Amino acid sequence: MAKMKAAVFVEKNRIVLEDKPVPDIGPLDALIRITTTTICGTDIHILKGEYPVEKGLTIGHEPVGIIEKLGSEVKGFREGQRVIAGAITPSGISNACMCGCGSQDGPHTKHGFEAMGGWKFGNTIDGAQAEFLRVNDAAANLCAIPDNLTDEQVLMCPDIMSTGFSGAERGGVKIGDIVVVWALGPIGLCAVAGAKLCGATTIIGVDTVSARMEMAKKLGATHVVDFKACNAVEEIMRLTDGRGVDVAIEALGTQPTFESCLNVLRPGGTLSSLGVYSNDLKIPLAGYRAGLGDIDIVSGLCPGGKERMRRLMNVVENGSVDLRSLVTHTFKLDDIEKAYDLFAHQRDGVMKIAIKTGA
Amino acid sequence: MAKMKAAVFVEKNRIVLEDKPVPDIGPLDALIRITTTTICGTDIHILKGEYPVEKGLTIGHEPVGIIEKLGSEVKGFREGQRVIAGAITPSGISNACMCGCGSQDGPHTKHGFEAMGGWKFGNTIDGAQAEFLRVNDAAANLCAIPDNLTDEQVLMCPDIMSTGFSGAERGGVKIGDIVVVWALGPIGLCAVAGAKLCGATTIIGVDTVSARMEMAKKLGATHVVDFKACNAVEEIMRLTDGRGVDVAIEALGTQPTFESCLNVLRPGGTLSSLGVYSNDLKIPLAGYRAGLGDIDIVSGLCPGGKERMRRLMNVVENGSVDLRSLVTHTFKLDDIEKAYDLFAHQRDGVMKIAIKTGA
Amino acid sequence: MAKMKAAVFVEKNRIVLEDKPVPDIGPLDALIRITTTTICGTDIHILKGEYPVEKGLTIGHEPVGIIEKLGSEVKGFREGQRVIAGAITPSGISNACMCGCGSQDGPHTKHGFEAMGGWKFGNTIDGAQAEFLRVNDAAANLCAIPDNLTDEQVLMCPDIMSTGFSGAERGGVKIGDIVVVWALGPIGLCAVAGAKLCGATTIIGVDTVSARMEMAKKLGATHVVDFKACNAVEEIMRLTDGRGVDVAIEALGTQPTFESCLNVLRPGGTLSSLGVYSNDLKIPLAGYRAGLGDIDIVSGLCPGGKERMRRLMNVVENGSVDLRSLVTHTFKLDDIEKAYDLFAHQRDGVMKIAIKTGA
Amino acid sequence: MAKMKAAVFVEKNRIVLEDKPVPDIGPLDALIRITTTTICGTDIHILKGEYPVEKGLTIGHEPVGIIEKLGSEVKGFREGQRVIAGAITPSGISNACMCGCGSQDGPHTKHGFEAMGGWKFGNTIDGAQAEFLRVNDAAANLCAIPDNLTDEQVLMCPDIMSTGFSGAERGGVKIGDIVVVWALGPIGLCAVAGAKLCGATTIIGVDTVSARMEMAKKLGATHVVDFKACNAVEEIMRLTDGRGVDVAIEALGTQPTFESCLNVLRPGGTLSSLGVYSNDLKIPLAGYRAGLGDIDIVSGLCPGGKERMRRLMNVVENGSVDLRSLVTHTFKLDDIEKAYDLFAHQRDGVMKIAIKTGA
Repeated sequence: MAKMKAAVFVEKNRIVLEDKPVPDIGPLDALIRITTTTICGTDIHILKGEYPVEKGLTIGHEPVGIIEKLGSEVKGFREGQRVIAGAITPSGISNACMCGCGSQDGPHTKHGFEAMGGWKFGNTIDGAQAEFLRVNDAAANLCAIPDNLTDEQVLMCPDIMSTGFSGAERGGVKIGDIVVVWALGPIGLCAVAGAKLCGATTIIGVDTVSARMEMAKKLGATHVVDFKACNAVEEIMRLTDGRGVDVAIEALGTQPTFESCLNVLRPGGTLSSLGVYSNDLKIPLAGYRAGLGDIDIVSGLCPGGKERMRRLMNVVENGSVDLRSLVTHTFKLDDIEKAYDLFAHQRDGVMKIAIKTGA
Repeated sequence: MAKMKAAVFVEKNRIVLEDKPVPDIGPLDALIRITTTTICGTDIHILKGEYPVEKGLTIGHEPVGIIEKLGSEVKGFREGQRVIAGAITPSGISNACMCGCGSQDGPHTKHGFEAMGGWKFGNTIDGAQAEFLRVNDAAANLCAIPDNLTDEQVLMCPDIMSTGFSGAERGGVKIGDIVVVWALGPIGLCAVAGAKLCGATTIIGVDTVSARMEMAKKLGATHVVDFKACNAVEEIMRLTDGRGVDVAIEALGTQPTFESCLNVLRPGGTLSSLGVYSNDLKIPLAGYRAGLGDIDIVSGLCPGGKERMRRLMNVVENGSVDLRSLVTHTFKLDDIEKAYDLFAHQRDGVMKIAIKTGA
Repeated sequence: MAKMKAAVFVEKNRIVLEDKPVPDIGPLDALIRITTTTICGTDIHILKGEYPVEKGLTIGHEPVGIIEKLGSEVKGFREGQRVIAGAITPSGISNACMCGCGSQDGPHTKHGFEAMGGWKFGNTIDGAQAEFLRVNDAAANLCAIPDNLTDEQVLMCPDIMSTGFSGAERGGVKIGDIVVVWALGPIGLCAVAGAKLCGATTIIGVDTVSARMEMAKKLGATHVVDFKACNAVEEIMRLTDGRGVDVAIEALGTQPTFESCLNVLRPGGTLSSLGVYSNDLKIPLAGYRAGLGDIDIVSGLCPGGKERMRRLMNVVENGSVDLRSLVTHTFKLDDIEKAYDLFAHQRDGVMKIAIKTGA
Repeated sequence: MAKMKAAVFVEKNRIVLEDKPVPDIGPLDALIRITTTTICGTDIHILKGEYPVEKGLTIGHEPVGIIEKLGSEVKGFREGQRVIAGAITPSGISNACMCGCGSQDGPHTKHGFEAMGGWKFGNTIDGAQAEFLRVNDAAANLCAIPDNLTDEQVLMCPDIMSTGFSGAERGGVKIGDIVVVWALGPIGLCAVAGAKLCGATTIIGVDTVSARMEMAKKLGATHVVDFKACNAVEEIMRLTDGRGVDVAIEALGTQPTFESCLNVLRPGGTLSSLGVYSNDLKIPLAGYRAGLGDIDIVSGLCPGGKERMRRLMNVVENGSVDLRSLVTHTFKLDDIEKAYDLFAHQRDGVMKIAIKTGA
């Protein structure tokens, strides 16, 4: 049985590069030889034991690679093709998928919904930080990479670009909107780009790291607010002349950011939540206007599937958004443990790390 | 100066029938001679001092009456016409109104948004529990009553019908949805009717008062759950075979009902909040699926304006929904203090009280 | 090789019951033993050579039956289960499906869109007027029938109920709308029921056959207009007091009905087209207000897939709509040629015919 | 009575600068001293007698100016303020307005809808090509110009920017869409910019004038097609690899452009029509897929009102779109007859003309 290297969750605080068998595939699957992948903030939650996965699981959900083998029922692709798959790999055929809610894709034996069920790689099945990856429901999830795009150019499509953009899309951002994006990590930066793509004309980014605030400006922020240098809520109310924002995108996953987003909304505004929370949340009565302010709080998991990937690669190909500068470091898969160490400690100005396999 | 009787907020726990001058009107206003009005749960919050209004304010926001006098700029109506106006009386011309958000109608001198600014009667200007009512922005807010409808038939249109229906509308209820309505007071009962009008086919009402549960069935509930007789969350999960509901409508305004609504949602479902809250709310992490469950929490204040009123009276006129049985008691305006006493203590199975003026 | 009886298109004006092999199935398919099916108006177009299909094709796209055999990859069902499948059987995994547009489902080798590509049964693959039916992409398309519903109760779900309801859904019918449905054949009658389910309060049905007009009233029409007894456009403008309708549903597929729908729309209204046209259409300049009237013309093919079927059967199960009276005649499959003769000539007040197999 | 100069429709082929009284204003009106305005293609239709207006009417619907006088009921503005008003000036209070359909604003005495009723300036009341303009319903329609923007920078906001953007907005353009804009006059060029603002990543402009095609590229077109140099439908199908476009924006108002838009749509696509038509339109059966292709045809009149104007000026202020290069010529009001002559004959590469009043 052929062997491959894979980054495996062993126990809390230990993700280790190990030898594992190359995955078998079934009739609906594809086997991808990974050429480039990356580490996500969520993987760090897994590393720290904050998000539970089974011991022995291969981590990672952002695959770029080449089709090594196709299941017998997978039409429309050929071996040797360069492809990506989304972090979320819906089946396409559950009731959830047929409601347009593939991120909550469920088993076919019951109602077809399962919370976060669309997220499989590195969560419920082996993931992408390995030499090979089995892609479930491949016909619904593989998407060919245009020849003129490098791996690095499309590396953000599977997760953070899809997630960040969805913050603006779900928030219903439209032409002329005032939008705040609270926290400018990779997801928040993509939310800034997404807000601009949806027509927002005033985009306020909130963070305290100057490199991130600079990048936000390049991606479309018209203003940045350093929350350590001022009272950010007051500053945003000042910038909007007391009006407040149409859409506030929460991109961190904490009570203070969630609450601040509510507090800068105009009546009738929308809080679009992207963060992964670790605790109960509090909705402050005043910010919520006692329930009478026509405030919507929307949330969601990254949209996946091949049509989403096709669209996001089209955004890249036509130059609408360029996220290459988010990739601040590159490591070989052989050195992925070092990459985890760097990323977990957020050293050296790291934003995203490209993990390369092969020679 | 002509005098009239009006129910006035004097101080906490005292709403008193007093003599006040008949209101003057400006060029955009109308003066309505009230024939029928009612008392809302919100008025009880005012009575108890839980919702602050100025001393001396006339209470009430559900007017049915006859046009006594029209301002010089009000076109399209004539004196003597039977009309209603919504509880919410937007100006039509603020930025909020022009965003379709008239309930958050604001002053024209600033950004045009003000939290709850559309609610004026018995909140920021004198209200409807009086012999006469000044209606602001009358051309935008008056709506003629079809001749074949009685005052009692249209008495619920200004507030609770509009509010209850909006719970289903904002929740995006559609054909084949499973909907729960949590709490079956007048608003919740209207939400049941609204869910049915929007195409929900499984409608579960939750309460413990059997008269309310019976009325819910008449208005379209396919199931009722007595939250004192069982664990209601478990019972709803059982009724939906473990799937959960598409839309959960909160119709009370408390932490337990809000939280229970979240806990019975399917992944990707919507919590539509109608309640007026008195405290911060907690979003439990599990029900919220850590922010990754595609859960939306929508809220809002009753839609007003003449087009809304026209549509709601059309619902009544064509027999789609009949809310007359909600009116369990009738009092003269002269006896409104007794009516407040009955309603505040929820005695005698009271649902809604018609307050009649005149002989 | 096992044989079965099947209604086969032989040539123009000849659909004949023949012996054919029982279909083989692949890993994603299911084999259904048909217990009940019906004949659609579209089948008559095929019979008359107005809609081209290959010679030798089995006709029919409205299956009710029992799972005889399941492909190896089909999860969530068991042999012996009573099921329906929609007339439209999307794969779930094409780009079209992932855009929520499964009726235009396309091949996976190209862009994933194909005009009408979701309609396969009795169009591009063998259909349901036979003893057995191969269901493509079975996991996406089969839906179990609740035990308490008869075949006849769910027989309209696969096509005309889904089609008729979609006329109201695509038209955006909402609470308080005035809707006209032009032509009250089976599809138009379902559109009446759909408009009511979506909250329309004034529903005007147009036809000239009194049995159909009577049935429209039972299904929710508040008014019926006999287009032979009056100028229907003028009558509708009179009924709406000169305002016009919010949504006009075209349910026949001819120039006069299409044009009349436009001519009764209020400015800003929507024409929702359900008809299958045989000729170019003309948009009259006046009805279209020279392109400046905010008029939308929406159209579409019947939505399919298992979630749609589940919802429609829920409508039936909860008694929201009862279409049993649409089934005016019953024939055995052995006598299907007689059924075609009756239906093609619209004799004996026929609306829909149940075709039963078995003893 | 004070006099002013105004461009008046005298008879077919004669718009003449005449002396007229400065308008009186009522309590809801404002009087604007025009500083800059422009001539619209629609004005040329009026000039040629193709669109009927009353003799003696002042033409023009794109005002930039200074508040000279405010009606007694107009709050939120002050005399001397620099303002624009939209070409469409809805009242805010009709039923149409309260449905979000202010372009079809109607009289208050009837149903509140009137086809194109929101367009008043230079259509049903005196217009902007004059020294002074009466603005109806001023509180709903005036919008202050940010100090840092010149008249020329905001001159396109009242009409063509609002119209062009609405082509993309009504078409539902979203991230990753392929959009064609057919005809690249001022409206079409604004539609290109609008498509980009809404997230389209492939934008194909069709015209034959090279200056227009160049400008389209600057505003966001990724491809341009010269319809005289090739079969444009075939070229677009080739550019999209046979798929077709998601949204086709018609920006001329002729049968060939309307039909071509249909013919390049993918199944499930949307034709967004901006053109003003002069004849009945034909929908070709094949392009319409016999009514079964999930094709939507949406249309509309330019959105107006102060909130729209505020948003469009924000687009300009934040540099999202710069339309100054559309203004190819400048004339004094005194010379407006020459400007009409130039514009009507489309000489000298004219796109839009700034008409300036004052010294």
